[in-house]
Amino acid sequence: MTSAARRPGDGPRKAAHIFDTTLRLLAAHGYDGLTVEGIAAASGVNKTTLYRWWDTKDALLADALDRSALFRFTPPDTGSLRGDLTALTGYVRGLLTGPDSAGAVAAAFAAAASRPGLTHLVRNLLADRLDREQSIFDRAVARGEITADLDRTAVVDMLLGAVWLRVMFRGGDTDAHFDETVVGLLVDGLPTP
Amino acid sequence: MTSAARRPGDGPRKAAHIFDTTLRLLAAHGYDGLTVEGIAAASGVNKTTLYRWWDTKDALLADALDRSALFRFTPPDTGSLRGDLTALTGYVRGLLTGPDSAGAVAAAFAAAASRPGLTHLVRNLLADRLDREQSIFDRAVARGEITADLDRTAVVDMLLGAVWLRVMFRGGDTDAHFDETVVGLLVDGLPTP
Repeated sequence: MTSAARRPGDGPRKAAHIFDTTLRLLAAHGYDGLTVEGIAAASGVNKTTLYRWWDTKDALLADALDRSALFRFTPPDTGSLRGDLTALTGYVRGLLTGPDSAGAVAAAFAAAASRPGLTHLVRNLLADRLDREQSIFDRAVARGEITADLDRTAVVDMLLGAVWLRVMFRGGDTDAHFDETVVGLLVDGLPTP
Repeated sequence: MTSAARRPGDGPRKAAHIFDTTLRLLAAHGYDGLTVEGIAAASGVNKTTLYRWWDTKDALLADALDRSALFRFTPPDTGSLRGDLTALTGYVRGLLTGPDSAGAVAAAFAAAASRPGLTHLVRNLLADRLDREQSIFDRAVARGEITADLDRTAVVDMLLGAVWLRVMFRGGDTDAHFDETVVGLLVDGLPTP
């Protein structure tokens, strides 16, 4: 479907099943191995039905990444900035290490580095999540934990970037302690003698 | 060449030229499009010469990433932790945005997400750099800027992860101000009212 006609929640019956199938095939075969024909066959939905709703593979993948239950994101509200940032870091760590999500995330972001259509898609997805994360900082300002001029994007990039680098490139083990460590370095500052 | 026989600086005459060619072809064609035959043709070095020194494409790529002048890394020593971390962040930002290096880094790390041989290579490279970065923290401890128990890897991951996420995924403009911002958030802590 064209973006002009798109409405949140629109889609064929079995949309959730189609999205799950799309992400599973993305994880298994990578972006280059993902085809609308393959999604049709694996989901048991007619190819012409898929093309009625999504013009291209990228359009279907965009909706799958945006709307799959796997990536559903509700900003945490734990009552403190430390708690919210720790939960946010843990949520992203879960996506990057979870058996159902890790392969799809790795394939999507790896391909985004070199394919303009997918680059745009990943940027929009991150921008959307950053919009939603504002509530974490708005509440922290209201509670007097931070000033309003804090560079919020830089904070989010440091926490999520640390998770990304550790999991995807260093291959280090990460657990809840990792979330607390990186958030603590920001909230408490570097330890001084 | 086998790793057992490897010595730093070993290699055929024209090694620097071969490494540059390897990284240029990696940037242009991606990991899957990189072949020893292609490197031979583009560098004007006989294929059998390349195979005498490097058993596989991955072995040649490992040496190219490790030993190319493009990625030469000397830990900064500016006299302060803030200055050193800002220089380190700026160095990595330069790699990820520089016209000669950005494509090779993106291709190598994107491919590392899904190819075990390359994953290992990237992990070793990062571990080697982390070893060299220890001097930054050792001096900061000696100067009394931080305690010895600081989680140094977490600090490096937060700074370099932030650069990676910003440049590769958000596509945001980055400049020296970005380096100062992320380092400032760590060294000064989050701004409080």
